[in-house]
Amino acid sequence: MTTDSRTAAASRTTESGTTADPTGPIPLPPGGSPRLDVEQVSEALLGQWAEARRTARERAARPELHRPLDATVAEHRDRVFGQLQLLAEEDVSRPMLPEHLGGPNDNGANVAAFEELVVADPSLQIKAGVQWGLYTSAIVQLGNEEQQQAWVPGAMDLTTPGAFAMTEIGHGSDVQSLATTATYDPSGGEDGEWVIHTPFRAAWKDFLGNAAIHAKAATVFARLITKGVDHGVHCFYVPVRDAEGELLPGVSSEDDGPKGGLNGIDNGRLAFDHVRIPRTNLLGRYGDVAADGTYTSPIESPGRRFFTMLGTLVQGRVSLDGSAIRASQLALHIAITYATQRRQFTAADPTQETVLMDYQAHLHRLLPKLAATYAGAFAHEQLLQAFDDVFSGRAEDPESREDLETLAATLKPTSTWLALDTIQECREACGGSGFMAENQLVGLHQDLDVYATFEGDNTILLQLVAKRLLSDYTSELKNVDRAGIGRFIAQRAEVLAKRHTPWARLGQNVADRGNARRAFDSMRQAEFQEEMLADRARVKVEEVALALRGAAKMSPADAAAEVNKHQVEMLDAARAHADLVRWRAFTTGIEALEDEGSRAVLTDVRDLFGLTAINDDLAWFLLSGMISAQRGRQIEGDLRRLLWRLRPHVLDLVAAFDVRPGHVRAPIALGGEQERQDEAAAHFRAQRASNDAPVSEKALRDRAKKAARARTR
Amino acid sequence: MTTDSRTAAASRTTESGTTADPTGPIPLPPGGSPRLDVEQVSEALLGQWAEARRTARERAARPELHRPLDATVAEHRDRVFGQLQLLAEEDVSRPMLPEHLGGPNDNGANVAAFEELVVADPSLQIKAGVQWGLYTSAIVQLGNEEQQQAWVPGAMDLTTPGAFAMTEIGHGSDVQSLATTATYDPSGGEDGEWVIHTPFRAAWKDFLGNAAIHAKAATVFARLITKGVDHGVHCFYVPVRDAEGELLPGVSSEDDGPKGGLNGIDNGRLAFDHVRIPRTNLLGRYGDVAADGTYTSPIESPGRRFFTMLGTLVQGRVSLDGSAIRASQLALHIAITYATQRRQFTAADPTQETVLMDYQAHLHRLLPKLAATYAGAFAHEQLLQAFDDVFSGRAEDPESREDLETLAATLKPTSTWLALDTIQECREACGGSGFMAENQLVGLHQDLDVYATFEGDNTILLQLVAKRLLSDYTSELKNVDRAGIGRFIAQRAEVLAKRHTPWARLGQNVADRGNARRAFDSMRQAEFQEEMLADRARVKVEEVALALRGAAKMSPADAAAEVNKHQVEMLDAARAHADLVRWRAFTTGIEALEDEGSRAVLTDVRDLFGLTAINDDLAWFLLSGMISAQRGRQIEGDLRRLLWRLRPHVLDLVAAFDVRPGHVRAPIALGGEQERQDEAAAHFRAQRASNDAPVSEKALRDRAKKAARARTR
Repeated sequence: MTTDSRTAAASRTTESGTTADPTGPIPLPPGGSPRLDVEQVSEALLGQWAEARRTARERAARPELHRPLDATVAEHRDRVFGQLQLLAEEDVSRPMLPEHLGGPNDNGANVAAFEELVVADPSLQIKAGVQWGLYTSAIVQLGNEEQQQAWVPGAMDLTTPGAFAMTEIGHGSDVQSLATTATYDPSGGEDGEWVIHTPFRAAWKDFLGNAAIHAKAATVFARLITKGVDHGVHCFYVPVRDAEGELLPGVSSEDDGPKGGLNGIDNGRLAFDHVRIPRTNLLGRYGDVAADGTYTSPIESPGRRFFTMLGTLVQGRVSLDGSAIRASQLALHIAITYATQRRQFTAADPTQETVLMDYQAHLHRLLPKLAATYAGAFAHEQLLQAFDDVFSGRAEDPESREDLETLAATLKPTSTWLALDTIQECREACGGSGFMAENQLVGLHQDLDVYATFEGDNTILLQLVAKRLLSDYTSELKNVDRAGIGRFIAQRAEVLAKRHTPWARLGQNVADRGNARRAFDSMRQAEFQEEMLADRARVKVEEVALALRGAAKMSPADAAAEVNKHQVEMLDAARAHADLVRWRAFTTGIEALEDEGSRAVLTDVRDLFGLTAINDDLAWFLLSGMISAQRGRQIEGDLRRLLWRLRPHVLDLVAAFDVRPGHVRAPIALGGEQERQDEAAAHFRAQRASNDAPVSEKALRDRAKKAARARTR
Repeated sequence: MTTDSRTAAASRTTESGTTADPTGPIPLPPGGSPRLDVEQVSEALLGQWAEARRTARERAARPELHRPLDATVAEHRDRVFGQLQLLAEEDVSRPMLPEHLGGPNDNGANVAAFEELVVADPSLQIKAGVQWGLYTSAIVQLGNEEQQQAWVPGAMDLTTPGAFAMTEIGHGSDVQSLATTATYDPSGGEDGEWVIHTPFRAAWKDFLGNAAIHAKAATVFARLITKGVDHGVHCFYVPVRDAEGELLPGVSSEDDGPKGGLNGIDNGRLAFDHVRIPRTNLLGRYGDVAADGTYTSPIESPGRRFFTMLGTLVQGRVSLDGSAIRASQLALHIAITYATQRRQFTAADPTQETVLMDYQAHLHRLLPKLAATYAGAFAHEQLLQAFDDVFSGRAEDPESREDLETLAATLKPTSTWLALDTIQECREACGGSGFMAENQLVGLHQDLDVYATFEGDNTILLQLVAKRLLSDYTSELKNVDRAGIGRFIAQRAEVLAKRHTPWARLGQNVADRGNARRAFDSMRQAEFQEEMLADRARVKVEEVALALRGAAKMSPADAAAEVNKHQVEMLDAARAHADLVRWRAFTTGIEALEDEGSRAVLTDVRDLFGLTAINDDLAWFLLSGMISAQRGRQIEGDLRRLLWRLRPHVLDLVAAFDVRPGHVRAPIALGGEQERQDEAAAHFRAQRASNDAPVSEKALRDRAKKAARARTR
């Protein structure tokens, strides 16, 4: 990566002119102060699949892959389908294939490359995700080798565009309740047939990418029924359109029409009216049917079988997490570059207005998002490695899979919401320019919007995390003998009660009293933040667990009502867990850096992340007695101080994201603003020099008043 | 308004079937419990200009005025221009005209009607706002009678579409620094001419509605220069295109192109290369130039003159406040209607899934927004009345005008941000359906997005509010004699220090101890909430004022740096003020209601608003000693209890918004979801009755296990 390929690095040069004459309270650090090694941090952010990311970043910079700014839905869909064919020709998804299908089974590289596409056009990314990450993956993950050989090549080279037909209008997140049926008919065809059927309107498959126009086949999730028994949801390979694109008999399709974003994808609905497919079109790896209708499965428990089949979905969540972080990086690159060039209102210097980035409020709105984006990037790298371990087969035990799913469910909601908040904040921070489509922020928000509710609705995912945390907590209790449980609970309750005594940690006060600097330093200690975030995550789970300990003995209806009474707390516990996970990943990432300057600057960024998380939940920390009033009162000031400490590093921090020209297409972040500012400044300079500038009426009046005062004296 | 014109009222009937069989912890209140009188609350929300609103609501329901779902920028612009011509033919803006121009000078009615347009198409609303609210208004407010007679008729009937050319690329919010010049040339033309000139790129007028295509004239804000003196920014009437739509000599225009929303408006740029216009094209009400170039003004101070001329801008802020509230109402109508019909996941009843609205998390995400929307609606009515008082001339004193501007600056940011948050929350709460354009939420978010930064950037407006609050505070100090100021400050500081002692209000604890119900009741007392919100608003201003008291003696540069160090706190103080204003307006609105049931239900909604505001800033209340730890610990539980208390009233609460079919075009809120749910339920009912439903594998296994256990016993 060359220096001139970096727009942010380029603007950094410009910035140094600015910060030599700072209007913010804290000047640039002197020469000896820590400075970020952009190259090294950039390398760290690239992570394990750096090469795949670099190639994908070059690809994403190609104009023919970019999002159009003004197109009808039909035009955008055509464009993206053409782009998808380009990607197919270049065989970009080959890394996902296992060895026996001619690939390297390099799932980490595949997902890493996929994530980078978000800065070209999120529609292209998600269209590729539907085709290869979902539809093809379902065949690879759920089919036997014969089925893979039959259908994967056409899926890869796009001779068979496909839909991933899971979601139904009536059931989005609750896949277990899908109503489409696949009923086995042993007398059908040569060797038995499945009858795929949509029993009512709410069972139409909906929101499926490729379904409205391009899909020739679909991996359809339906209840497998044979010999009068419903074996639950399984996946079937169902041709839906012929070579000319005409719907096959019994198949209906509707177009979802225009959406809030991602309009390059032809989302639509599919329904099946007793559509017959061969017996061997059941993707039978985890459940198969013999010609006589006998059902067999390598996994005995129907519940575990179901969740194993759904395991393939985790890939989507992993890649959305990484994509959301990348989108945040692009947004921050644009808004921060602009904020270091754009000037508005005079403050210190009457001949030069103040650059936006020097306003406290501007730092306050952008820097915590920058910190969270760093935290999210390091956390994502851990998730991607866990994913690669499982999907490569190196760690295929159920615990690794469950841990992976919990981590994905923890991070995907956090990062997709962060992206939406960050992009919106960046858009507003750029004022009217932020609302222009050419400056990319609005389109990015529109496209990323649905990332919060598809591939696992964020709220539902956080609820899964909370349930996992609760069940882990309960398992701990299981290690205690029966008699001990009562004691254990009583003891925990006592600890909690103590925590609820305000200022239990009087020691904090005594240690810090009268020494704001010391308190600041101590809150910036990693141990302090780790303890606060870890204890919070733990206690919030404990509190819910204790509140729900009676539910086990209740009727299902009463138990459900009891759990529902604590749903908001459960989600809150999951979010606390997410903060901890990201904080730890960030800290681990920093420890791995060699350059001392980079470590110092990123530690400030990490502290900003950690202290912001604590401050956002400060009432809870105060009420639980975990943070003293004195520290509580200190924290906002500490956060402001961190903002100013980081001010000189903002362009380095975004430069490390390696967002390149081509990714950045926003004129406001490509020098346009600086050029205008320079031209205006030159104009006024020349005017002042020439002495032919008009005098302002106010100045004349002030002079006259002064003269009058002098006369009356 | 008839009952059958109410979609929400209609769905209320459906809902009663649901709530008879509730799965939430708290059932419908029995017959004797309070119930909202929808008709009466609806009437209260209509406010003083009810008739104008009713007519405008009928208009907004007409399909020919609705937002297209899929159109290119060019198509959408054409459509909206046609719609604008319809509005012109129907003379909808006549109420704004003063008597001598043939109108009733009914500014309140004019703005009320304008606000209602937002549910038809926000592009149409803003296009109308540009033409009549800004461009025509500038002529009416800043021109003399001759100028009004010459240009207003063509502006009203759209023979002269116009642009309001204030903002420059380089200066959005800082109007005082505009760089376009209007230099007087007494030798030009018959009677002297102005030379309008754009000195550099950053001085191009930008983001102007109508500028790209439709505008034939523009009200251009430029620095008035005559006899070598710069008299500051004034407004000029400048023809920009001929009858055929060709740009006039010296005028340049560029198209802003596609935007994040509002794409029915042709925003663009304008620049002037020594364009000459007659002397009499200066809109001269507050500053005029004689043929010889002598400048005169009825307002001596250049600063006050400038802000008086800008006073016309307040109309835009007032109307955006009302429009944002209306948009929130539409979004809540859609999401809450859907949430009472959509079912997902079984909990209590194995044959029926739970309706979304019965999940605690769903109540938690939507109801506080509903409460804030009510608060905002009552606050807006007060703002509109204040606006009408000033613009009708009944209250034209500077204080009334200043109060109006402060109130507009307080409410416009709050309501436009509330609208964005509410729409986004509603969109996510509707899952994938929320992302479909036909369900309106995504388009609403895209269009409303820019409401946060145009007509006064929200952050800048809040800063104005903070400055006003600070200067009011300082004025109080002025009433104390010189020697007294020191004492006053010392005394205030002491009070603050006391407040900072944790649990100064030990009394709260003693009174409440061991009685959660009493604490709940006392926090729901209006006096408690009022005291908390008022004291907070007051103390936050005091704290900034005390922190800044040294700045007065500093150099301008140091003072600016000092103020900048407290910018985030200033914005926070302004937000606290906005909470108080809205809470009071809500409370006043409730007091005016006659129906006891409505008062009771809305008091719960008001409490939800007040306690949410307190809870969101709970750490501050705890640290300031204003709320005891015990109450602090109580408040989240109280909020949850309020959610359940309000659960049975949600459809009544949205019905009172009077959002009609035609405003609601979202299929998910027009019965489509209920129909699908009913069909699916009927299917499963029939299947259970017929006994030919397949048995689930899990049920078989459970039965087999049981049998095995029985055998081994």
